[in-house]
Amino acid sequence: MNSAPENARQTATPRPRPGGRTARIRTQVLDAVHAELTEHGYDALTIDTVAARAGVHRATVYRRWRDVGGLIADVFAAAADIDWEPLDSGSLRGDLAALNEEIQASLTEQPSIAAALIAVSFRSEEAARALRQLWESRYAQCEIVVERAVRRGEIPADTDARAVLIAATAPLYHQLVLLRTPADPGLPDRIADSAARGAAAGAFTQQDSTDAS
Amino acid sequence: MNSAPENARQTATPRPRPGGRTARIRTQVLDAVHAELTEHGYDALTIDTVAARAGVHRATVYRRWRDVGGLIADVFAAAADIDWEPLDSGSLRGDLAALNEEIQASLTEQPSIAAALIAVSFRSEEAARALRQLWESRYAQCEIVVERAVRRGEIPADTDARAVLIAATAPLYHQLVLLRTPADPGLPDRIADSAARGAAAGAFTQQDSTDAS
Repeated sequence: MNSAPENARQTATPRPRPGGRTARIRTQVLDAVHAELTEHGYDALTIDTVAARAGVHRATVYRRWRDVGGLIADVFAAAADIDWEPLDSGSLRGDLAALNEEIQASLTEQPSIAAALIAVSFRSEEAARALRQLWESRYAQCEIVVERAVRRGEIPADTDARAVLIAATAPLYHQLVLLRTPADPGLPDRIADSAARGAAAGAFTQQDSTDAS
Repeated sequence: MNSAPENARQTATPRPRPGGRTARIRTQVLDAVHAELTEHGYDALTIDTVAARAGVHRATVYRRWRDVGGLIADVFAAAADIDWEPLDSGSLRGDLAALNEEIQASLTEQPSIAAALIAVSFRSEEAARALRQLWESRYAQCEIVVERAVRRGEIPADTDARAVLIAATAPLYHQLVLLRTPADPGLPDRIADSAARGAAAGAFTQQDSTDAS
């Protein structure tokens, strides 16, 4: 998951925000949620602290977001709404490595809103659902990377795109989020390499899931 | 991580517990922590609820475990202390698939203490550290699987065992713990297969980490 709007690989022209006061208030409030989450964590999050930090009247925040669950849901919705597409480097390994570089950057930046949102997903069912949807949409956006590799003849035509993407990215989340090991600058490329080799060797073809013993 | 002592693949003779009343009290208390964690979560965990559930005097629990952090640390210590070794199936794919079957079983059993402990690691620094140590010790125990594959000539001699193990297991944690997708019975073998093929293709040799661009 990459939820950093300032990310370097984002397309040049961000989708224009619906303008005006409403949009400005949303930005202020969601920025305040990010700051509160990364500084004080989910437990300390209240409508009142967010309103105070955002400099927005608390009645406005209550009316629009209702409760902490509403704020969290909107943080995920805003992250999903970022106009992003994966890099086209010319090779599957390169594309997966670029994706992994972005994931590693978003999980290790200080503070990391991506890491904070994953932590929140262990506290709130609503957040867990929103995170799943965000990941679902990111993986769907990334399937083009595998499709391009198929068109270039790098990997078999019946390769399961999702399986390749998960194999290529999961070790990074595992190390950084679950094992909490320090970032290894070589890891994004290394696991991209192994997933690309596995894909080329036919480890992720669709049939594979049916004839597995 | 596999923290299920009742697991089917455990070696036949569990290490005898140091006997007597002290050991019995520890078992009662840790069982109570498991039950409280999986039923009510970390937030509801107190020395008093654990003591009541265990049927042990609260002064005893306070004296021996001090606080909730002490209880959690001991749950992890007990999990690490299980006399476990990976299956020797005769092939790298088979060994990794067996390992993944155990992980999938421990994460999907109801209630899952493994899943509860991962959730707790997002609440407590102490638990995060203990989980990291537990995983470290499990991965160390599993390196024999890769060593055997090297001896059989299945994979290159300079294969990085830890990298293979993480590639083989991370997608399972990613799907079950982070993406929270339902268990897929074919997944343990499928990702074991892809990691074994990648290892055979030389994707996890030690040099690979230095010449990565």
